[in-house]
Amino acid sequence: MSYVYGVDVGGTSVKIGLFSGEGELIEKWSIPTNTDNNGEAILPDIASSIDAKSKEKGISDSEILGVGLGLPGPVDDRGIIRKAVNLHWNDTFNVEEKLAACFDGRLKVKAGNDANVAALGEAWMGAGKGYKNIVMVTLGTGIGGGVIINGQIVTGTRGAAGEIGHIYTGTDTEEPCNCGNRGCLEQFASATGIVRLLKEELENNPDEASEMRNKPLDSKNMWEAVKNGDELSIRVAERFGKYLGTGLSVVAGVLNPEIIIIGGGVSMSGDVIMPYITKNFREHVFHASGDTIFTRATLGNDGGIYGAAALLI
Amino acid sequence: MSYVYGVDVGGTSVKIGLFSGEGELIEKWSIPTNTDNNGEAILPDIASSIDAKSKEKGISDSEILGVGLGLPGPVDDRGIIRKAVNLHWNDTFNVEEKLAACFDGRLKVKAGNDANVAALGEAWMGAGKGYKNIVMVTLGTGIGGGVIINGQIVTGTRGAAGEIGHIYTGTDTEEPCNCGNRGCLEQFASATGIVRLLKEELENNPDEASEMRNKPLDSKNMWEAVKNGDELSIRVAERFGKYLGTGLSVVAGVLNPEIIIIGGGVSMSGDVIMPYITKNFREHVFHASGDTIFTRATLGNDGGIYGAAALLI
Repeated sequence: MSYVYGVDVGGTSVKIGLFSGEGELIEKWSIPTNTDNNGEAILPDIASSIDAKSKEKGISDSEILGVGLGLPGPVDDRGIIRKAVNLHWNDTFNVEEKLAACFDGRLKVKAGNDANVAALGEAWMGAGKGYKNIVMVTLGTGIGGGVIINGQIVTGTRGAAGEIGHIYTGTDTEEPCNCGNRGCLEQFASATGIVRLLKEELENNPDEASEMRNKPLDSKNMWEAVKNGDELSIRVAERFGKYLGTGLSVVAGVLNPEIIIIGGGVSMSGDVIMPYITKNFREHVFHASGDTIFTRATLGNDGGIYGAAALLI
Repeated sequence: MSYVYGVDVGGTSVKIGLFSGEGELIEKWSIPTNTDNNGEAILPDIASSIDAKSKEKGISDSEILGVGLGLPGPVDDRGIIRKAVNLHWNDTFNVEEKLAACFDGRLKVKAGNDANVAALGEAWMGAGKGYKNIVMVTLGTGIGGGVIINGQIVTGTRGAAGEIGHIYTGTDTEEPCNCGNRGCLEQFASATGIVRLLKEELENNPDEASEMRNKPLDSKNMWEAVKNGDELSIRVAERFGKYLGTGLSVVAGVLNPEIIIIGGGVSMSGDVIMPYITKNFREHVFHASGDTIFTRATLGNDGGIYGAAALLI
C-alpha cells in the first residue's frame, strides 16, 4: 500500500494528514507552530511528528510517496520560499531541501503556496474533481487564489501567480491594503472587506433600520441578515458581488477555466453568496466563458492538507 | 534535415512559412484567402500550396515535422474550431483532422488561435526567447492576447484563454464592443480605441490647438504627435496607458509572468508607447510582479507563421 502526508503550515498550528495514495484521509492531527527563534523548530517538529506517526502505524519509508507542504508565502517551482511573515521566516531558502534534510533524505518533499495548494486539494478530491482548468478563491481574512491548468498548479515566476486578492478593483481606498497598494480586491470581498463595506453602509445611512445595528459586525452575521431580507445588508452583498464577480470575469478572460471554486470562511455562509457573484461575472465576462461553472469548496479546512498531499500525486 | 511549415490564416490572405526544425525561416509567401462557399477551399488551397513547395524544394514528407495553423477564432486543445467569422466558417469542426485529410494523412497538423500562436512565435524565436512564462498582447484593430506557461500555450476550456482584449475596464462605453459587452479593454487600447480616445479629446476641447486637427486620425499619427510634445495627444497616450497598464497589472496578478510582450500595429510606433503602459502597471501590480519585464515584439507580421510552426516543435 502507498501513503502520502499532507501538511498545512499556519501561524498558530500545523495541520497534518495521512492519506492513502488514492486520496483517502486516514488520519489527521495538528501540532502547535513554534515561531520562536525565527521559526527554526517548525520543520524539525513536522518531521518528528510524521516519523512518529509512521512508526505508530507500522508504515515503512518505502511505502511513503512523500510529504507535501502548504506554506503561507510564495514558493517557486524549485521549492524556494522568500518570506513567510506568519512563521517568522525572513530568509530566502529551499524549504523542500530543508525538510528533506530533517528526514535525512529518506522522504521526498514538495512544497507550495497554501492558497495554490488548497486549489489543488479541491481539484484532487473536492469540488474540482474531474476538471483540469480551475480557479479557486479563498475568502477569509484576506483573499487567496489558486490557478490549476491541465491539472497542474500555475506557480508563476516568483511563486506569486494566483494572487487574485491583490488585483486592482479600480476603486482606490483611503487606507492601504496589507500588500501596500490601494484598491485591492481583498479590501472589498474578503471577510474583512465585507465588514468594511458594512461599516460604510451603517455610517452613511444613520437613520436606516438594520438588524446589523444590534449584532457583532462580521461576515457570518451579515449573510444571515441578507437571508432575512435586511436591505442594508443586501446592498453590502451587492457591492461585494460587484467587486468579486467583476474581478473574476477578468480572471476568466485570461484563463477561460471550466470551473471557479469559492472557498474560505465567507463561503461557509452558503449558497446565498453565489448569485451576487455570478450576476456580475456574467454581465462582464467574455461570452466564451459565460458558462463557467461556479461552486463552493467542499473540503473546508481540510483543503490544505489534501492539496499538500496532492503535490506528490 | 527537418522542416516545418507555419501557416497564418487571415481573412484576406494566408501567409505560409517554410522553416528548418531549428527555427530558421527559409522562405515565406502568401496565397489569397478564398472565402467563397463558406470558405470551403481554404484548407485544400493551403495543402496544395505546401505540397507544391515541398516538391519545388525536393523535401520529402518524412523530413516534414508537420504543418502548424494559426486561425482567427478560438481553437481548443483537440483542434476544434467553433467559428471563424473572417473566414466565413460557421460550423464547429476539427480543423486539424480536416487539413490532415487534405494531405491524405501524410503530414501532422496542429492548430491554434492566431493571437495565442503569435505569443508562441515570440517565445520560440522572438522577444520571449529564453523565457517560459509569457504574456503577449497584440494591439491592432482589436486586441489579441496569448499566455504561455512553462513554454506551452494556455488554451482554456473553449480555446478562449488569453482574451485580454475583452477584459472589463470598469468604464462602460455607450456603444458595445464587437463581442457584445461594453467597456472591454480593446475599446480603449487598440488602434481603434486610440482613435476613439483621440476623437473624444478633440471634441471635448474644441479650442485647444493640436497637430492632430490637420492629420488623419490614426494611432501612428497620434504617437508621432506625442513624440512632438502635442499636449492633447499626450493626454490620449496617458488614458491609453491607464487602461492597458492597469489591465495588464491584473493579468500579472493572476499569472506572475516573467515578461510581457507588446505587439501589433500600435507597437510599431516604437518605445514611445512603453512608459505610458509601465507607469500604470507598476502603480497597481502586486509587488512580486513589480519587476516584470516589458518589451516590444520583434517578429512583426511574421510572428504568426513562426508561432504556427512552433506548434510542432
